[in-house]
Amino acid sequence: MDQPIGVIDSGVGGLTVARELMRQLPKEQLIYLGDTVRCPYGPRPEKEVIRYTLEMVDFLMEKQIKLLVIACNTATAFTLEFLQEKLSIPVIGVIQPGARAAMKITKTKKIGVIGTEGTIKSKAYPHALEYISSKLDIYDLACPKFVPLVESGQFSREAAEQIVSDSLQPMLKHHGLDTLILGCTHYPLLADQIKAVMGQRVQIISSGEETAREVSVIMSYQHIAYEGERLAKHQFYTTGSPILFEQIANRWMDYPVQFIEQVTIDQTLIDNE
Amino acid sequence: MDQPIGVIDSGVGGLTVARELMRQLPKEQLIYLGDTVRCPYGPRPEKEVIRYTLEMVDFLMEKQIKLLVIACNTATAFTLEFLQEKLSIPVIGVIQPGARAAMKITKTKKIGVIGTEGTIKSKAYPHALEYISSKLDIYDLACPKFVPLVESGQFSREAAEQIVSDSLQPMLKHHGLDTLILGCTHYPLLADQIKAVMGQRVQIISSGEETAREVSVIMSYQHIAYEGERLAKHQFYTTGSPILFEQIANRWMDYPVQFIEQVTIDQTLIDNE
Repeated sequence: MDQPIGVIDSGVGGLTVARELMRQLPKEQLIYLGDTVRCPYGPRPEKEVIRYTLEMVDFLMEKQIKLLVIACNTATAFTLEFLQEKLSIPVIGVIQPGARAAMKITKTKKIGVIGTEGTIKSKAYPHALEYISSKLDIYDLACPKFVPLVESGQFSREAAEQIVSDSLQPMLKHHGLDTLILGCTHYPLLADQIKAVMGQRVQIISSGEETAREVSVIMSYQHIAYEGERLAKHQFYTTGSPILFEQIANRWMDYPVQFIEQVTIDQTLIDNE
Repeated sequence: MDQPIGVIDSGVGGLTVARELMRQLPKEQLIYLGDTVRCPYGPRPEKEVIRYTLEMVDFLMEKQIKLLVIACNTATAFTLEFLQEKLSIPVIGVIQPGARAAMKITKTKKIGVIGTEGTIKSKAYPHALEYISSKLDIYDLACPKFVPLVESGQFSREAAEQIVSDSLQPMLKHHGLDTLILGCTHYPLLADQIKAVMGQRVQIISSGEETAREVSVIMSYQHIAYEGERLAKHQFYTTGSPILFEQIANRWMDYPVQFIEQVTIDQTLIDNE
C-alpha cells in the first residue's frame, strides 16, 4: 500500500520512534507531526491532551495515512483506546510494545520503568504489564531531569553522566531486576549512560524500537505494507519553529531530514483566522 | 476472551513455541497438537504438508480456538497465507516474527539463518526479510544434524558441542554478521552451544520467543486476550505415542505437562473406520 504512516508526538521526542520506523521499515514513508509549540503534554490536564491529540490526528488523516503511531507516552495513555475505536485505520501507541518486550526478556519477573512524572503517575506501564501477567514485580521511577538534559544536547558530557547516575540510584536497589523500560521517547538518546549505570545484567528496552517492530506486525497482519521498491521520502511538520526542529532532528536522526514545514493545527487559532 | 490458543506442529519442536507462549502470556490456555506420527514434514511434498496441516487445523477449530499458531517452519512456509485467508481467526506463523526481530536487532544488516534442509531450501526467511528491506546481506545454512541431536536428548554433552561447532563453521566466515535466526523450533534447545560458537557479537533470535511476542500483539490488537485471573490449564494432543511425547515435553518445558492424549486426525484412517 502506497500511503504513508502517520506519526504524532507532542514535540521532538517521537523522532526516536520515527528513526526506528525508518530503520526497520526502510520502504515505508512517514509523515511526522510534532506539536512543539504546545509541548510538553505531560503536565496538561487529560481533556487538553485529548483535544490537542485529536487536532494532530485530523491533520494527518487528511494526508491519507494508512496507520497512525502515537509516539508520545502521555497521548498514548489518554487517547489510544479512543482512537482505536474512532479511526478506521490501525492505531499503535508506545506503551504496550515496551511492556510486551519486557515480558519477553525478563527471567526474574522484576521489571523497572522510567519516564516523565506524568507517565509514571499515570501508571500506564504497570497497568499494561499487569494486564499480561499478575506475577510481576514492577518498579517505576520518574526521571524529570532527563528530557531537559536530552533537549539541551549536552548529553554526552560528564555532568550528564552524573545526572543519569544520581537519578537512577533508587532503581539500583531493586535486587534481581533484569529489565528496564525506557518509558519516554527522549530516553533512548541516553541509552549508553543508562546502560553504564544499570550494569550488564539489566537489559534496556527502548519503546521506539519495540513500537516500530509492532507496526511491522500489524501492517503485515492487515496486508498494508508497501511491497514495491522505492527511495522512501518523509515529511516532517511542526507547530513550532522549523529551524529549531531541524537542528534537533538532524542531531538525532541517522538520516538527513529534508522536508520540514511549520503548520497551524490549533482549531481555535484556525477558526479566528 | 475465554477460548484457548491453538498451536500446531509436525511433532515436538513446536513445544519450544508453546513454552514461550506460556511464559509470556501466563493467563492464556493452549491446545497443542503435534503430528508426531507423520513427523518430519520437511522432506514431504508441498501437497502432503498442506493436507496434513489442514487436518490438524480441523481438529483444533472444533475445539473453538480463538487464534492459531503454526509452530512449524515447513507448515508456515506452505500454508500460512492460505490459512490466513480461509480461517476467520488470526493465524500466526513462525517465520515472519523471526525476520522482523532480526530487522530490529541488526546494525550491520548482515543476517544469518539456520534451519533444516527443507526450510533453508524453501528460502522462506530470505523472502520474509527481503519483503521488508532490499538492503540486507542474508546468509543461510542448513544444519541437518541439529534436530536428531536435540531429540536424542544428548545435547549438553561434549560431542554435541563438537557437532554444533562443525556445522556452524561456514556461518563464521561471514564478516560483520551480527544476527543469527534460529529458523527451526528445535534449535532453541541448542542456544547455549550456538552462542558459544558464534561469539558475543552475534545476537541469537529464537523464532519461538518472537512468535509469542507477536501473538500478544495480535491478541491485543483484536481484543481477544483473556482479561481475568485464572490458573491456566493446557491440553496436549499427539498423533503418536503419548509416552514418548510426555518424556520429551517434560524434559523441554519449564512447566509439568499434565494433560496428554493420543488422537487420530488422518482423514483417510478416520474414513476407513
